[in-house]
Amino acid sequence: MPRKGEMKLGVFVNQAGYSEGAWRDPSTPVNGSIEVDHYARVAAVAESAAFHFLFLADHLGSVEQGQASVARESGNAGLEPITLLAALTARTQNIGLVATATTTYNQPYHLARMFASLDHLSRGRAAWNVVTSASKFEAPNFGETELPDHDTRYARASEFVKVVTALWDSWEDDAFIRDKQSGIFADSTKLHVPNHQGKYFSVRGPLNVARPPQGYPVLVQAGASAAGTRLAAELAEVVFTAAPDVEYGKKYYDSIKEKARAVGREDNQVLVMPGIIPIVGRTKQEASDKLQRIQSYAHIDVQISLAERMLDVDLSSIDLDSLVPATLPTTNIFQSRQTVLLELAARHKFTWRQLIRFVADGRGHRIIVGTPDEIAENMVDTFNQSAADGFNVMSATLPGEFMEFVELVIPELRRRGKYRSAYAGQTLRENLGLMRPLNRFTQASR
Amino acid sequence: MPRKGEMKLGVFVNQAGYSEGAWRDPSTPVNGSIEVDHYARVAAVAESAAFHFLFLADHLGSVEQGQASVARESGNAGLEPITLLAALTARTQNIGLVATATTTYNQPYHLARMFASLDHLSRGRAAWNVVTSASKFEAPNFGETELPDHDTRYARASEFVKVVTALWDSWEDDAFIRDKQSGIFADSTKLHVPNHQGKYFSVRGPLNVARPPQGYPVLVQAGASAAGTRLAAELAEVVFTAAPDVEYGKKYYDSIKEKARAVGREDNQVLVMPGIIPIVGRTKQEASDKLQRIQSYAHIDVQISLAERMLDVDLSSIDLDSLVPATLPTTNIFQSRQTVLLELAARHKFTWRQLIRFVADGRGHRIIVGTPDEIAENMVDTFNQSAADGFNVMSATLPGEFMEFVELVIPELRRRGKYRSAYAGQTLRENLGLMRPLNRFTQASR
Ligand SMILES: Cc1cc2nc3c(=O)[nH]c(=O)nc-3n(C[C@H](O)[C@H](O)[C@H](O)COP(=O)(O)O)c2cc1C
Ligand SMILES: Cc1cc2nc3c(=O)[nH]c(=O)nc-3n(C[C@H](O)[C@H](O)[C@H](O)COP(=O)(O)O)c2cc1C
Repeated sequence: MPRKGEMKLGVFVNQAGYSEGAWRDPSTPVNGSIEVDHYARVAAVAESAAFHFLFLADHLGSVEQGQASVARESGNAGLEPITLLAALTARTQNIGLVATATTTYNQPYHLARMFASLDHLSRGRAAWNVVTSASKFEAPNFGETELPDHDTRYARASEFVKVVTALWDSWEDDAFIRDKQSGIFADSTKLHVPNHQGKYFSVRGPLNVARPPQGYPVLVQAGASAAGTRLAAELAEVVFTAAPDVEYGKKYYDSIKEKARAVGREDNQVLVMPGIIPIVGRTKQEASDKLQRIQSYAHIDVQISLAERMLDVDLSSIDLDSLVPATLPTTNIFQSRQTVLLELAARHKFTWRQLIRFVADGRGHRIIVGTPDEIAENMVDTFNQSAADGFNVMSATLPGEFMEFVELVIPELRRRGKYRSAYAGQTLRENLGLMRPLNRFTQASR
Repeated sequence: MPRKGEMKLGVFVNQAGYSEGAWRDPSTPVNGSIEVDHYARVAAVAESAAFHFLFLADHLGSVEQGQASVARESGNAGLEPITLLAALTARTQNIGLVATATTTYNQPYHLARMFASLDHLSRGRAAWNVVTSASKFEAPNFGETELPDHDTRYARASEFVKVVTALWDSWEDDAFIRDKQSGIFADSTKLHVPNHQGKYFSVRGPLNVARPPQGYPVLVQAGASAAGTRLAAELAEVVFTAAPDVEYGKKYYDSIKEKARAVGREDNQVLVMPGIIPIVGRTKQEASDKLQRIQSYAHIDVQISLAERMLDVDLSSIDLDSLVPATLPTTNIFQSRQTVLLELAARHKFTWRQLIRFVADGRGHRIIVGTPDEIAENMVDTFNQSAADGFNVMSATLPGEFMEFVELVIPELRRRGKYRSAYAGQTLRENLGLMRPLNRFTQASR
């Protein structure tokens, strides 16, 4: 059944591309991960196709700790997302800029300020992907021995975001009068000191940055356990998720919308956007050859190391040709990903080797290998079934595979009336159809 | 006596300009403080004159707390310095980018990463101005009730910078091989895990960013008490300071160089660059008229509030026409500034009103009011007397007064052979004549 409206699209920018080993592809620039020009090129391709946003993940650590694969890991030479996106504000015009930042090892005042600044610099195109960290390699960089408890992380996240939005509301939109004649810079009745005192934070405020152009930068969230879904329903305007297939995606989509409705939020104000990894070929054969080529880049050590991290399991003494068990000890780290991958492995009766391969290809995100027509059809079908409001496109190589997607798949989506051909507004909120939040204090005085 | 070489110049970018009330000048853009175009314009003027760097101060709070002057304060609507400079990397080619960041309310891993990223984005033009905070308005934004003790702040700062440089050394310069053929991304023998365990921080590392192009971004420092000077001698490559006159400047300059020599550092690797506020007129009369006009912008409430903050004193019940006393209770906040201002007031027998005026004009920095010839002569003389290796130019209005300086004073400096006409190198280090630090681990293995 066709569904009204158009899908939203983001592009996930992961250095040389999303597939493990993408940096080895002849098409990817050798120093791409630290070259702003590489990212600017991806951004230009995305803007030419009116993509809604660039998406940058984040990790506050390295993956070398006790890993045999350290020499083959490519994740240790990147750039910090907020500074990178700030640089890209000057090289882009319309596209949204999503930076991931964890609430587990940050302070609300700093993040409120950075994102407010990014929103001003980009004239309303900033977004914050709120995460709670899912790696054991970060805590030791912040004076802690272990990743804090899963529930504690989410409780802290919820309070963290409340503090940040209160700081963004410190000054009403029209608080700064800047009347040169009288010398009155601010209307002091429009200053509201948050004075937050909570379980995890005590932050007086106010922020020393004017309210962001979007009111708040768009709030994105990624984290799909029960606790993660609760946080999403509470505050996320875009939910990024890993849905390995449509069945899973549909279930997840419905649960998010239902929980959001339960707290009084409108369906179209909580956009669910799973990742997809499109492997595009002009023919089926070309597509599957391409997949094979890309798969050949990831050394088995790197694949194993990645799977160990995603599943929180030690594979060193496991027979890789044995079946994946139905359950593993519950993890404190990346709960949702462990659940999704085990469920998938059970459904397909995967051996460890097969699951490791699946994780290396896309870490749990859905891979669609096919012709432009097939990929577009698949996306439209997922959209029509209300299993997604759009997608975060995680091209296997950058800019190569992404250019193919834009050149070949985007026209197919447009032909089906499911994707726009130009930007609708200036801000990311306008482009996503999201309301601009009223300042809580302005609201109160009405 | 003439001195060999040329002076270094930075431009201090403080929203609408350095004078209190600069935003009221007809020439300053109304929304300048939050408009990246405003900053880009200043940067373009600075690059056209081959300035060494743009300098951004920072403050992690607002000045509204219990201040009568809140409506007239202009400091509450700015941008965060690191994001702002990241945006400017794309709009500048050669100029250095100095961001101030405090060690008192940050974590070394975050700052190491941000500055490394900024150095990559700018291809080696980043610098970090290390400060320890000097305001009572920040602590409550970070869960603390009071600014930590002066000595504690400096002890933390010293350890903080050690951790940051160790993180920058995590990977040797040539650690990332990126051999597509073999799949070896990094030479794992060139990875060095800092594993820092100290009094204030425990940070394992390594950083997940490649070693910055400059090895380390240039280390700038501002803080001029005994403890501040010790820190400067230990690690600063550029020292920013407030020297209200040449006598004070000379004493300070000598003490920094001497302390640096005592720890084995070369004179030309520790550049002392005081601020100056040039008020340029084509005639003497034009210059003094201009000063008067600029002074008229700062309301007395704002002037008093600023002086109270700089001196850590409550002026509400003091007769402003009485003489400033020789001493005040020692402050925990901005020790060096209190000392400098009291010394100056004593020498000139200032009343409170006069001192307040002086603080409003330049917060303790030297003001030079005169013709281009007089200003250039004055600067060259200070340089020749070895009271400065260069200056941080703190124009009263931006871009207006700064354009005047570039148009009228720079040619005079050049005529005297004391200022260059083009960039000498690509990186800020090259332009400042600073050595590129060897990686400590590379060094050790030689
Ligand atoms: C699709 C997706 C993307 C994520 N991206 C990041 C990331 O870039 N950085 C990060 O620290 N955590 C990331 N996370 C993890 C979240 O931080 C989340 O807090 C973590 O998975 C634990 O919560 P969960 O079990 O609810 O998923 C991501 C999670 C999902 C589902
Ligand atoms: C010229 C100068 C500029 C400074 N700029 C800043 C600044 O932008 N932000 C800040 O937090 N502190 C700044 N400081 C203060 C330093 O943080 C310093 O740690 C503080 O003054 C207390 O140390 P002191 O008594 O040694 O000067 C500055 C200090 C000086 C001397």
